[in-house]
Amino acid sequence: MKAAGLMSGTSKGSVSSIGEDRLIRSIRGWLGSASPAPPAGIGDDCAVLRPARGRELLTVDAVVRGVHFADGSPAREVGAKLMRRNLSDIAAMGGRPRAAVVALALDGRVALGWLEGFYRGIAREARRHGVAVVGGDVAGLKGSFVATLALTGEATGRILARSGARAGDWIYVTGSLGRSLPTGHHLHFAPRLAEGEWLAGRGEVRAMLDVSDGLAKDLRALAPSGASAAIYAAMLPRRAGATVREALCDGEDYELAISVASRAGRAALEGAWRRAFPRTRLSCIGRFVPAGAVPPGAIELGQFRGYEHHR
Amino acid sequence: MKAAGLMSGTSKGSVSSIGEDRLIRSIRGWLGSASPAPPAGIGDDCAVLRPARGRELLTVDAVVRGVHFADGSPAREVGAKLMRRNLSDIAAMGGRPRAAVVALALDGRVALGWLEGFYRGIAREARRHGVAVVGGDVAGLKGSFVATLALTGEATGRILARSGARAGDWIYVTGSLGRSLPTGHHLHFAPRLAEGEWLAGRGEVRAMLDVSDGLAKDLRALAPSGASAAIYAAMLPRRAGATVREALCDGEDYELAISVASRAGRAALEGAWRRAFPRTRLSCIGRFVPAGAVPPGAIELGQFRGYEHHR
Repeated sequence: MKAAGLMSGTSKGSVSSIGEDRLIRSIRGWLGSASPAPPAGIGDDCAVLRPARGRELLTVDAVVRGVHFADGSPAREVGAKLMRRNLSDIAAMGGRPRAAVVALALDGRVALGWLEGFYRGIAREARRHGVAVVGGDVAGLKGSFVATLALTGEATGRILARSGARAGDWIYVTGSLGRSLPTGHHLHFAPRLAEGEWLAGRGEVRAMLDVSDGLAKDLRALAPSGASAAIYAAMLPRRAGATVREALCDGEDYELAISVASRAGRAALEGAWRRAFPRTRLSCIGRFVPAGAVPPGAIELGQFRGYEHHR
Repeated sequence: MKAAGLMSGTSKGSVSSIGEDRLIRSIRGWLGSASPAPPAGIGDDCAVLRPARGRELLTVDAVVRGVHFADGSPAREVGAKLMRRNLSDIAAMGGRPRAAVVALALDGRVALGWLEGFYRGIAREARRHGVAVVGGDVAGLKGSFVATLALTGEATGRILARSGARAGDWIYVTGSLGRSLPTGHHLHFAPRLAEGEWLAGRGEVRAMLDVSDGLAKDLRALAPSGASAAIYAAMLPRRAGATVREALCDGEDYELAISVASRAGRAALEGAWRRAFPRTRLSCIGRFVPAGAVPPGAIELGQFRGYEHHR
């Protein structure tokens, strides 16, 4: 398949050049083995799944033209990104992904070649992580492209919610932060599924979330009531070339932030991590302290905004 | 709340006038009791649900500005419609709905008053049918509004797939067909959940789907391989004022079509239906016959197209 832009220059290679039935047959072909036969997959009013083992997880995320990708972004990476954004949410609960549905709202001029790449990117990520793409919907939308993916997961062990942190807890973050857009990280990141499941199995880890709106904003969601994050610039794992502000505010990092009980041995956690994930950083960046007691030298997080949609 | 148009005339009452955090808090308020606390509901990376009883169902549908609703459509009915479109899919499998996630892609000028109505409409339908709205996503989209809802369900009894019909089966349809848009039916229909569950419990019913793209198209999806639907104009339950063509092609009927074993006693099914649903029609409209053997007097369905997106 040759690389194709989002919009077709001719009506011939566009979505509107084929009917809905042929489009849906094409989508099933592009998804290939990631798309099981009905009633487990695409082709009936609903997909039918076996019940989840343990508790079930459910999340939803979208990619929008001009917001989450540019017209020149490779279609496969846009499709993969849509799946990965959702996988990152499952990772942040310590779960395993199961089944996805994909709803498109798109202009009839969208190129079939682009759409093929988009679905092949979804399928690649789905196969990599054992996800079945079981259904979807297609609707018209003048001048744009919105793809929404809902993903179910299951958690057979402990689930790590955002709540659970306490004042005194250590704050850790996986990987490195900042400059996700200019470096292309937002299109190429690996969701931290294995890491999330491993962390959920560690008793000293009390709370977890995925860092997607910028650490400064996301840490406010992790902070226990009456406490603030005291983190230090020198301890922040920054992506190459990223300033402290970029590491705190850029968003789209898709890393995990965790809160670790203060009584726990940090060396034990860090040693076990290095043996399990020798190629991925896990950095202690500070701790939660009583609100108003942020020590000198710590970053004044209140002055940093995370990524806010519609601002 | 006064009635509000989709787009705000002033920046003051628009989505962009408040930050994302306040918007999400507002949405939780509008959803009220339809939105459980996290981790079961909105506020964590994923919602956490108990496992489904029996098999699990999963479906997704959207409403798009200018396609599924007009700017002047009442916001509550647009929200209710989004939920009902998905409920109709659960009904068509004979299942019960459980949990929903809602993803918005919207212009910053969308009026908060309109959005409030939209979510209150979703919440009303959710409460009516025992659905918990457990999560969502908000993204920017210049000049439009796309809302996508994914719904899970469970089926403790028999699941009625689309496949299963055989040549010779009777074809039935609930309610009446055609003129869904001009009559407002598309905004006000009641999803056939109780009817779907009841029909799934009847052994003589072999296959079922929801009629949403027009009966002519949807019957092709229900027809067994090597067979065609032979249906009769005089037997078609038409909405007041609808022509035969409108009953076959208009779409957005959200009724159930079923295939019933030919050896079954039609009188027994019809009598039991009348006792269970005295106010809802169940009409026998014909039967599946070997392809090429459509009898004289039956409608030539091949000449009717159903509703096709992008055409």
